[in-house]
Amino acid sequence: MTRRLTLVGLGPGDPELVTAQAVRALNEADYFLVADKTGQHPGTADLIAMREAICARHVTGPWRLVPVPDPERDRAGRAEYTSAVRDWHEARVRAFEQVLLDNPGDAAVLVWGDPSLYDSAIRVADRIVERARVDVVVDVVPGLSSVQLLAARHRLVLNAIGGPITITTGRRLLDDAAAHDNLVVVLDGTLTCRRLPDPSAWRIWWGANLGSPDEHLMAGNLDEIADQIWSRRTAARQSRGWVMDTYLLRRGQQPHR
Amino acid sequence: MTRRLTLVGLGPGDPELVTAQAVRALNEADYFLVADKTGQHPGTADLIAMREAICARHVTGPWRLVPVPDPERDRAGRAEYTSAVRDWHEARVRAFEQVLLDNPGDAAVLVWGDPSLYDSAIRVADRIVERARVDVVVDVVPGLSSVQLLAARHRLVLNAIGGPITITTGRRLLDDAAAHDNLVVVLDGTLTCRRLPDPSAWRIWWGANLGSPDEHLMAGNLDEIADQIWSRRTAARQSRGWVMDTYLLRRGQQPHR
Repeated sequence: MTRRLTLVGLGPGDPELVTAQAVRALNEADYFLVADKTGQHPGTADLIAMREAICARHVTGPWRLVPVPDPERDRAGRAEYTSAVRDWHEARVRAFEQVLLDNPGDAAVLVWGDPSLYDSAIRVADRIVERARVDVVVDVVPGLSSVQLLAARHRLVLNAIGGPITITTGRRLLDDAAAHDNLVVVLDGTLTCRRLPDPSAWRIWWGANLGSPDEHLMAGNLDEIADQIWSRRTAARQSRGWVMDTYLLRRGQQPHR
Repeated sequence: MTRRLTLVGLGPGDPELVTAQAVRALNEADYFLVADKTGQHPGTADLIAMREAICARHVTGPWRLVPVPDPERDRAGRAEYTSAVRDWHEARVRAFEQVLLDNPGDAAVLVWGDPSLYDSAIRVADRIVERARVDVVVDVVPGLSSVQLLAARHRLVLNAIGGPITITTGRRLLDDAAAHDNLVVVLDGTLTCRRLPDPSAWRIWWGANLGSPDEHLMAGNLDEIADQIWSRRTAARQSRGWVMDTYLLRRGQQPHR
């Protein structure tokens, strides 16, 4: 019998930023799957607790969270980034597949933010379908991303009037900043903007742990506040064991709104 | 006495895609403001009715919608695009300000999609604060964008693994496509991708009226389906008097997920 596998975007963390559709998807699932990184990063137990709080707020009746231990990713070789990510995806596919085989019923995968932005759940689900060891139909429920909450908190429009927005990663920032005036940066563990060759040309709007009770926001000229941002980021990481942040960079001559 | 002006992202149209925070913001406001384009485009009465349906679904108790007639925008001169938009913003600022002066209490502006993406509400609110004729504090409640619903419907990850996403407008597409492999296109009234010099190099994932009962989705090789998309877009526009669409373009050699 075909089972349902629903990838539910839970938004950036605040239980109030969940949509009615996500609430319904949670209530219709027999159990929830969540990637569990506590093996590698014990501090991230917190992130599972935040998801439990979202379920507790919105699910009527009993519910069951099944953690899926996340495989170790090979972070050694920079050049091999894409293939390391692919191997890790494949290991994750097998881990999720096994949990589905062990647990009958309809499952919902709890996805931080939006499944369409820098998240592996859709690719994992597609591979599970392709491997055909489990008979599932996959649906995606979109969720708010932390980028949108960053913009709301700073009261920012992400685009200049009629202008483009480039969303990129810390890994690519130094290249992409050469050709763009307006960038959103995600997945940047080292605040790469500190290494831009022309820091006085940029303004930054930064946010960390957006949607959590421990939210941090800073905005200003990059050359003036980059070190302060790094200090706050480091302190936030030390206090909880993890930090998730994102920022908008805009060249100074661009209008800010 | 300081009043609240809350810019509420309602999502792409489906009442189920509204967040709990947006619902609370609607319930706390004394009345709702909505830009009313029916003067120029009578068909858009529909768009106001869709917003009413969202309010009817989520607001407990009575509520009041105050339409703000949208000023005419000068669409004649292409070169003057930014300044025409700025003049139009200023006229809109005065229209919203007048409604706030005429209607005491806390107001919520009903914003389609997300106020942080290609929307004028934040800029309008900032100007109202700057002009200081009304004493308001402004808050932004983020909403799902149609781009996210496009991705969910097509079960797409918007980025290639570790890769960037460029969001741009129809007006800029021909320039931006020369330098990018992965683009989301918004505000494109003429399906500009039909004029790309190398249509066989691209795949497209298209969606119109996303989140409405009259939703359209198509995906395939750009050279094979661009004309079909244009036909469906034209038919959708004729049947309702308006159409809103967005699409992802990706060069063929890129992985699709």
